[in-house]
Amino acid sequence: MKQSQLFVPTLKEAPKDAEVKSHKLMARAGLIKQTAAGIYTYLPLGHRVIRNIETIIREEHDRRGCSELLMPALQPRDLWEESGRWGQYGPELMRLKDRKERDFCLGPTHEEVITAVVRDYIQSYKKLPLALYQIQTKFRDEMRPRFGLMRGREFIMKDLYTFSESRGDLDQWYQTMKEAYTTIFKRCGLETKIVSSDTGQIGGDTADEFMVMSEVGEDTITYCDQCDYAANQEFSGLSAGNACPMCEGTIQVAKGIEVGNIFKLGTKYSESMNAYFTDRDGNRQPVIMGCYGLGISRTLMAAVEQHSTDEGLVWPKALTPFLVHLVPVKMTADNEDAILSLYNTLSKTCTVLLDDRDERAGVKFKDADLIGLPYRVVIGKDFVTGQVELTDRTTGETKLVHVDTLPTHLIP
Amino acid sequence: MKQSQLFVPTLKEAPKDAEVKSHKLMARAGLIKQTAAGIYTYLPLGHRVIRNIETIIREEHDRRGCSELLMPALQPRDLWEESGRWGQYGPELMRLKDRKERDFCLGPTHEEVITAVVRDYIQSYKKLPLALYQIQTKFRDEMRPRFGLMRGREFIMKDLYTFSESRGDLDQWYQTMKEAYTTIFKRCGLETKIVSSDTGQIGGDTADEFMVMSEVGEDTITYCDQCDYAANQEFSGLSAGNACPMCEGTIQVAKGIEVGNIFKLGTKYSESMNAYFTDRDGNRQPVIMGCYGLGISRTLMAAVEQHSTDEGLVWPKALTPFLVHLVPVKMTADNEDAILSLYNTLSKTCTVLLDDRDERAGVKFKDADLIGLPYRVVIGKDFVTGQVELTDRTTGETKLVHVDTLPTHLIP
Repeated sequence: MKQSQLFVPTLKEAPKDAEVKSHKLMARAGLIKQTAAGIYTYLPLGHRVIRNIETIIREEHDRRGCSELLMPALQPRDLWEESGRWGQYGPELMRLKDRKERDFCLGPTHEEVITAVVRDYIQSYKKLPLALYQIQTKFRDEMRPRFGLMRGREFIMKDLYTFSESRGDLDQWYQTMKEAYTTIFKRCGLETKIVSSDTGQIGGDTADEFMVMSEVGEDTITYCDQCDYAANQEFSGLSAGNACPMCEGTIQVAKGIEVGNIFKLGTKYSESMNAYFTDRDGNRQPVIMGCYGLGISRTLMAAVEQHSTDEGLVWPKALTPFLVHLVPVKMTADNEDAILSLYNTLSKTCTVLLDDRDERAGVKFKDADLIGLPYRVVIGKDFVTGQVELTDRTTGETKLVHVDTLPTHLIP
Repeated sequence: MKQSQLFVPTLKEAPKDAEVKSHKLMARAGLIKQTAAGIYTYLPLGHRVIRNIETIIREEHDRRGCSELLMPALQPRDLWEESGRWGQYGPELMRLKDRKERDFCLGPTHEEVITAVVRDYIQSYKKLPLALYQIQTKFRDEMRPRFGLMRGREFIMKDLYTFSESRGDLDQWYQTMKEAYTTIFKRCGLETKIVSSDTGQIGGDTADEFMVMSEVGEDTITYCDQCDYAANQEFSGLSAGNACPMCEGTIQVAKGIEVGNIFKLGTKYSESMNAYFTDRDGNRQPVIMGCYGLGISRTLMAAVEQHSTDEGLVWPKALTPFLVHLVPVKMTADNEDAILSLYNTLSKTCTVLLDDRDERAGVKFKDADLIGLPYRVVIGKDFVTGQVELTDRTTGETKLVHVDTLPTHLIP
């Protein structure tokens, strides 16, 4: 892609309301732009990363037997009355009336809709289990939107719902999705801790959260330094220094960004919304549900928080908007054809961003630092002898490489 | 994909409110399910078709130098006050207040947001042209939602906005996108007519619509039977029998489904919203805009209307959710391994739906007729000698084929 066409409005200064590093960098590198408080436009570079995260999520869900669908954002009040949540939710639920004065809300979650979608169909154990997910824009009117994509009012999520005939089957899905989430975050370049948590407004009896440890996290995590134990402090009641019952370790405290949460819903929605099936013995039973959320825009934010310096991003390869940044010091009538030819050749095997802008070299280098693609290829004075300067952004190493061997150095 | 996992809730009877063939079939084949009037869930089969249409759109936009981004659905009132449209729109604009009583609308279109996104950046002719598009859910509170996805209240669109320094550059983009749209619809298996139309609430001075001729269309199209002339009757004032000024032909009348519309906006939004740039002569000018909409959910609907019989769908290969429907008459302990092995082999080279459900053969065949994948492979009594029954859904031709040569018969 040519940078002149891509729309990458880099900024010298971060917006005044940007408090944390990731928010500042995402605005400065031209990944996002605020449209209203807590409401953002994903600019082309940011959108490409979102799409990479979505691809990883789809792969890890589809291979585990989940199917993708897409539910509406507008949800009618009657479904939320069935579950009893219309009255339970406060002003964080965005409500509106249509032209005939009927009540709707903008979905922050889709337990009601998915239950209504499947309940006529899953009348027999033969139709179970089912695992359905979507990737969709969600809405929550946060009291204090802040930290860019971390606490937004319109955000992108993946939400999966499972329908089982038994507790055992739900437990199996829950375990499968725990593993799927760990894999997804690892592929995104993020290490996560799984912490026990409260079920909150979603309901159910068991819930876990996936936390990326970060000083800008909003949750306080207590964890043992010698075993797997970890919990959201609000839920566990444990604090630093408490003995951990399972081992000899010491409880530590850190901040975490919540990037995923999974719930054993049980029969809360199937009972209230009449999603019953006939089991193997001919008895009518409420179907047993699980739900599994993953914050996509927040994962982008957490990845930027972890993979950056104050000067710019250092994209993990699985998420990077492009693998290679091709930066000619100066494009002239003499070298333009050769540069375009190199760009076209490289584009056959990997994703390449060509800085074809009519800008000074200093501006291009500064923007390249900010954008932080894994490989930078500077086309300078040695290009006449076929040499370019290759920098590996992760190691910081720079070397002169002949264009003929360049592709062998670019490892996706 | 295994059909037992996919969630394909086929129906014997179409919903009572389904008036037209495509709506009936999409509900019966388990492609969509209504959540509220004019608001639908795209079930896994329907969602896969939507994704195929999106892929075609992305390819045809990206190769023409357009960049993808994603704008929010929630749009603040102040932007619509700048353009003057907050007061112009009626109840079809869905409005709501946030918890602090600030006004928002749910975007039916994004001229205001995109202009606000780019205006700080395009201060010089050097930053132009720009062509930015998104694929997104849009909202319009139709008075009478009907015909399924044809006139819905929440729908999926692609919208592109171009920013030019001159009328000539806008004219070039307009022509480029006319060709892109024709290509996109052709790849989707749809023949379209381009008709002149009114600019309506979007504004500007020139507009064209892309129409799929269909008896269930809501627009009346007048066209010449001997030249390229075609227009939306509402706009042209022409009716059947009028002489066409450009040629000797006769004006014909037909109904059309509008699947795309393109507008030369000119400077309506750049003037009102202060999107000015410095031109090559150093003068400040309002940027010249174009906008280009394509209804994705409506394209799905139009494709179903054109590619179906009353009994079921006949998917064009570019859109089909799967290429092959693998239908075992009966799966038993004896043949299960061989069937799964065939399924796994085929899945390496094309998309396959395996009907692994515990259902009678008659039910499976009826569902397969309804779903209408391009190739049906029936695994019956001849499977013991390695033979399966292959039906080409387009030609209706059926023949016995050995599993070893089967892949050579399946043309994507």
